[in-house]
Amino acid sequence: MQDAERLVTLTTDFGEGSPYVAAMKGVLLSANPSARVVDLGHSIPPQDVRHAAFFLASCLPYFPSGTIHVIVVDPGVGTERALLHIEAGGHHLLAPDNGCWTLAAAQLTKASPNLPTLTVRRLTEPRFWRHPVSSTFHGRDILAPVAAFLSLGGDPKELGCPVAQWVRHDLPAPVLEPQRLAGEVVFVDPFGNLLTNIPGEAFLTLASEAVRVVVGTREGTRVVRTYGEAGRGTLIALVSSCGLLEVAVAEGNAAHELGGAAGTPVVVNTLPTDSHFRLQI
Amino acid sequence: MQDAERLVTLTTDFGEGSPYVAAMKGVLLSANPSARVVDLGHSIPPQDVRHAAFFLASCLPYFPSGTIHVIVVDPGVGTERALLHIEAGGHHLLAPDNGCWTLAAAQLTKASPNLPTLTVRRLTEPRFWRHPVSSTFHGRDILAPVAAFLSLGGDPKELGCPVAQWVRHDLPAPVLEPQRLAGEVVFVDPFGNLLTNIPGEAFLTLASEAVRVVVGTREGTRVVRTYGEAGRGTLIALVSSCGLLEVAVAEGNAAHELGGAAGTPVVVNTLPTDSHFRLQI
Amino acid sequence: MQDAERLVTLTTDFGEGSPYVAAMKGVLLSANPSARVVDLGHSIPPQDVRHAAFFLASCLPYFPSGTIHVIVVDPGVGTERALLHIEAGGHHLLAPDNGCWTLAAAQLTKASPNLPTLTVRRLTEPRFWRHPVSSTFHGRDILAPVAAFLSLGGDPKELGCPVAQWVRHDLPAPVLEPQRLAGEVVFVDPFGNLLTNIPGEAFLTLASEAVRVVVGTREGTRVVRTYGEAGRGTLIALVSSCGLLEVAVAEGNAAHELGGAAGTPVVVNTLPTDSHFRLQI
Repeated sequence: MQDAERLVTLTTDFGEGSPYVAAMKGVLLSANPSARVVDLGHSIPPQDVRHAAFFLASCLPYFPSGTIHVIVVDPGVGTERALLHIEAGGHHLLAPDNGCWTLAAAQLTKASPNLPTLTVRRLTEPRFWRHPVSSTFHGRDILAPVAAFLSLGGDPKELGCPVAQWVRHDLPAPVLEPQRLAGEVVFVDPFGNLLTNIPGEAFLTLASEAVRVVVGTREGTRVVRTYGEAGRGTLIALVSSCGLLEVAVAEGNAAHELGGAAGTPVVVNTLPTDSHFRLQI
Repeated sequence: MQDAERLVTLTTDFGEGSPYVAAMKGVLLSANPSARVVDLGHSIPPQDVRHAAFFLASCLPYFPSGTIHVIVVDPGVGTERALLHIEAGGHHLLAPDNGCWTLAAAQLTKASPNLPTLTVRRLTEPRFWRHPVSSTFHGRDILAPVAAFLSLGGDPKELGCPVAQWVRHDLPAPVLEPQRLAGEVVFVDPFGNLLTNIPGEAFLTLASEAVRVVVGTREGTRVVRTYGEAGRGTLIALVSSCGLLEVAVAEGNAAHELGGAAGTPVVVNTLPTDSHFRLQI
Repeated sequence: MQDAERLVTLTTDFGEGSPYVAAMKGVLLSANPSARVVDLGHSIPPQDVRHAAFFLASCLPYFPSGTIHVIVVDPGVGTERALLHIEAGGHHLLAPDNGCWTLAAAQLTKASPNLPTLTVRRLTEPRFWRHPVSSTFHGRDILAPVAAFLSLGGDPKELGCPVAQWVRHDLPAPVLEPQRLAGEVVFVDPFGNLLTNIPGEAFLTLASEAVRVVVGTREGTRVVRTYGEAGRGTLIALVSSCGLLEVAVAEGNAAHELGGAAGTPVVVNTLPTDSHFRLQI
């Protein structure tokens, strides 16, 4: 078995330092003491499937093929929602059927065009689970033992039958016109920077002329390549490290200072003048 | 040596991302670079031995036999309080003698009835410690090097002599009567759910008829199996994933909304009517 | 390869549970799936180079020789500031050229007098980087792949040429007089304890007689060896586990209660009386 095949990442909304994360690690390591557990993040806002979707899409693609990703953001735990095993681009994902994983899976399959396309199975085989299965903690009782099974080289086909339908979460589509881009904030990062659904490329094309960026009721005209180019407090627009338009406040917290949150409208317009770099008041 | 024997878990009240946790990892890995360090949680409220006790009891039992658990919640550091090595159910615990470990050890011995009962030793052999030993950071100077010694296959008998007395922390005993269960909140989880000392089984027996659950000055009658069964904001009572009565607010934070904290009284009464599912205002 | 040579520590200001930390782990583990990633801390206040400097100095020296430390506190990302590889006392550090690493490196070289002195190289060889290199996330695109290269046994000489100049961050020098020590708070730990730049030895010499410790506008006279020696709420002065004068509030948070922060002046004076242990009001 290769090293990457024993990597098991954990992403939850349990909070950093939660005893529930610790319990999942214990279950995993009891079944496979040589599994290598990697914390991705446990600060997903409780039950915020959209936040989880963007979080996963922005980090899962960097992991090696063969990695097993366990995702527990699960407002429907204990109800009839399914639990899924997803193979995408050579990665294994284990997640509830609420759409939290679909953005990441799209990235993973795009990055590995030679691998088989997406395979999604419903976890239906209780023999791989921990018993008794609680009604409120399937991360510990179902997903962690299934992850251990996979990390020991278990065959995903045994976990359940393929399914053809699942809940999807897509980014809202931006409106991209020749002189105007209209989208919204889709993720607030831990610095308070506002990631939008407007592609960086479309933004750069428009920003070859002077532009105005409007975020909720605030606006700015300062386009930069990186944070350090503008004075403290300036509202800046740049292409983020994930390739999307990002709105930030230099040395500040845009979410706090602009009141931006997921869903806040963001519009980019061209300006009549040709001055690219004007100070933001 | 088996993989599990090199697993060293860390639980502290130092805060996530504390330089003190990082220093302990360094000491451990310097003495045994192949030790496998697992963070359980560093968000125990400072010096809160009761919180630590419940935290540990709710996650240590899931780890494999042979795991070494280092626990640093230590208001008495540098005073005459002892530091202990505990063998319980095949696990090794290293902790201050303040009771933080006794609930977990009880769980561990119960889970492994064939293993020798509890052995507790006082750490008295400075040759296993890091010198000079500071007065304020025994986690780094005593517990981490002793954990490394154990992870290298060292014999616990060398660490000090067995002792017969130690500080215990037990859960307060609930009052369980045929029509009434009286207990208290013993743990607030990171979602704000309130875990009580009332056994889930006793609760379910009573809740086969309609019941009223009183938490502090608030009350509810909604008994569910899982969070998703009730509408947002409903006060709900359920059996938690650790087997105890839990009071929660659906899609909400019960600790904030009810003002519940460790010690808040919780009472379950049967009701004259037989309607199990009534909406909570 | 020895185990320690595959240890890669991460220290950032990205926030615990940040997707950016997760992305860096992915890049590292994709290039070297057997690297062993150790989180030191991701709660450095954003872009606070001084905080990072003290944080690193207080934990890096405990790690084994051969460890690779990746440090991303980088207000100048994307500007002309250099990225550096530093060899110090057998450790490898990868960090931006903003001084965040110099205190730690001084500790590392002091601890290993037989090893070659400090070697600092500027990372100039894009063949070791991830492409395209973003303007805002060099931790992912440059430092993580370079760390993986080193963890696979790569030769640091290939990374770039040695440089002789770099930004330094030194602790401010305290004024040490026979009856008076004047310094300042240099670090607030997660408990709110105030670490100063006054050497513990100088403090203990003065405190062999009665002393007054003045922190900002507050003062105290209680000198202790450890926290548990004083009653709750008492302002106490002690030698911290890192060897410097520390001011704390017993069972309290000195930063909150005294308003102390990095830069707050701290003065120790001898008193005319000889009573060492007086209660602080």
